[in-house]
Amino acid sequence: MCELLGMECNVLTDIVFSFHALSARGGKHGPHADGWGLALYEGRVARVFLEPAPAADSPLARFVREHPIKTLLAIAHVRRKTRGEVSLANTHPFVRELWGRHFVFAHNGTVKRADQLKLGRFTPIGKTDSERAFCALLAALHHEFGTRAPRWTELAEAVAHHAGTIGKNGTFNLLLGDGDQLYARCATKLHHIVRQAPFKKATLADEDVSIDFAEVTTPRDRVAVVATMPLTRDETWTVGEPNTLWVFRDGRLARTLAS
Amino acid sequence: MCELLGMECNVLTDIVFSFHALSARGGKHGPHADGWGLALYEGRVARVFLEPAPAADSPLARFVREHPIKTLLAIAHVRRKTRGEVSLANTHPFVRELWGRHFVFAHNGTVKRADQLKLGRFTPIGKTDSERAFCALLAALHHEFGTRAPRWTELAEAVAHHAGTIGKNGTFNLLLGDGDQLYARCATKLHHIVRQAPFKKATLADEDVSIDFAEVTTPRDRVAVVATMPLTRDETWTVGEPNTLWVFRDGRLARTLAS
Repeated sequence: MCELLGMECNVLTDIVFSFHALSARGGKHGPHADGWGLALYEGRVARVFLEPAPAADSPLARFVREHPIKTLLAIAHVRRKTRGEVSLANTHPFVRELWGRHFVFAHNGTVKRADQLKLGRFTPIGKTDSERAFCALLAALHHEFGTRAPRWTELAEAVAHHAGTIGKNGTFNLLLGDGDQLYARCATKLHHIVRQAPFKKATLADEDVSIDFAEVTTPRDRVAVVATMPLTRDETWTVGEPNTLWVFRDGRLARTLAS
Repeated sequence: MCELLGMECNVLTDIVFSFHALSARGGKHGPHADGWGLALYEGRVARVFLEPAPAADSPLARFVREHPIKTLLAIAHVRRKTRGEVSLANTHPFVRELWGRHFVFAHNGTVKRADQLKLGRFTPIGKTDSERAFCALLAALHHEFGTRAPRWTELAEAVAHHAGTIGKNGTFNLLLGDGDQLYARCATKLHHIVRQAPFKKATLADEDVSIDFAEVTTPRDRVAVVATMPLTRDETWTVGEPNTLWVFRDGRLARTLAS
């Protein structure tokens, strides 16, 4: 099992506070020491940092925390392997281009009968059920909409439908980004929070690290954060209901769909 | 115009010495200050560092130099834009998955009539003629071989043929990696060297930085390096002949094909 972290905002934001919490769970406070990854979008393209090693003591993870890159959409993952050896090819998040944009995917759980999924034009590079499921999800979207991207509302419905089909009988908690939206499916365990005015102070759940968001925001800012487990101890996180998909857009929860 | 750097080896090697020279040309000794990128393969998957900013004073480029990652195959690029604004989406090298492996591509020059190229299933994310040409090259390979990767000798012939067609009338100096081979097409300007026993000392062309390769190698090692311009002042580099493709494999020049 693994831990997921996603962020979707209406204003350029750095993910350092949340990523600090996640990377501490990658080998320090948690058992997710088999790799970590962080994807940061700039428009339709994602910049991805990956390492098949614990995030907690990674020089690259430290560099990312010390040189924050602001973004509107980010997806991060720390891995505790269930299937597939510890290697770069098996490290989440995974990335593919579809419709001239990067899709970024990270997964927590296990997909049943992943070897029977239809992959279309996408081929896994590594050995995880997660990457196969991602390829199958993109193949289903490509099969449904062809060479032109649909409107975001249609895409959201399709992601909910196909992710539900792929995840049936398994554990398919996932984060998917397309540069504009963050899709977050809860199979068993997922939480989110939308931070907006009036901003308050927050303290990490596992570390004595606090931030007063009022000092680093404007009243217009909205930042949605999704994580496997709440990252802070003094905020109220919304618990995900199994078999639902949250769609975040412009820093708010835009849709909740059955999935 | 831009500068290209590729490395292909028979033993895990870090690219720090050569990348130091290249990144100095990215804004310090050279005018290529509009972005830089470095792709490092681990098997069939590439880890990519990109920044739409000068390499010479980039903290991330410095991090990469100070925390060398060993690899058998690497492709790097510093950009001086001709088409397409300075942005992450327009920063080389570009990456796509085909046949369950990453293909990595970097280009120096200008492709004529790039908007008329057939792109098949690959869609550019950015606005460069380079990324369009890369998509067209992969589309041609996919069209020729379908869903199964050919033997490397066939693939080399096909890369030579299709790159020659796409590059006709333009300036299509390129580096292409597939995880096993490094393909390097010379349209106007490209150089290579194969370092092997007996190893010697080498000094960078633009900086007073030397390395004695005899101290960091074994007699079995072979390291092929390709660059737009020779990176060292005291070694003999082979000059590329226009319209040829070099194919490097296991640290040696395995083929030279008309292209």
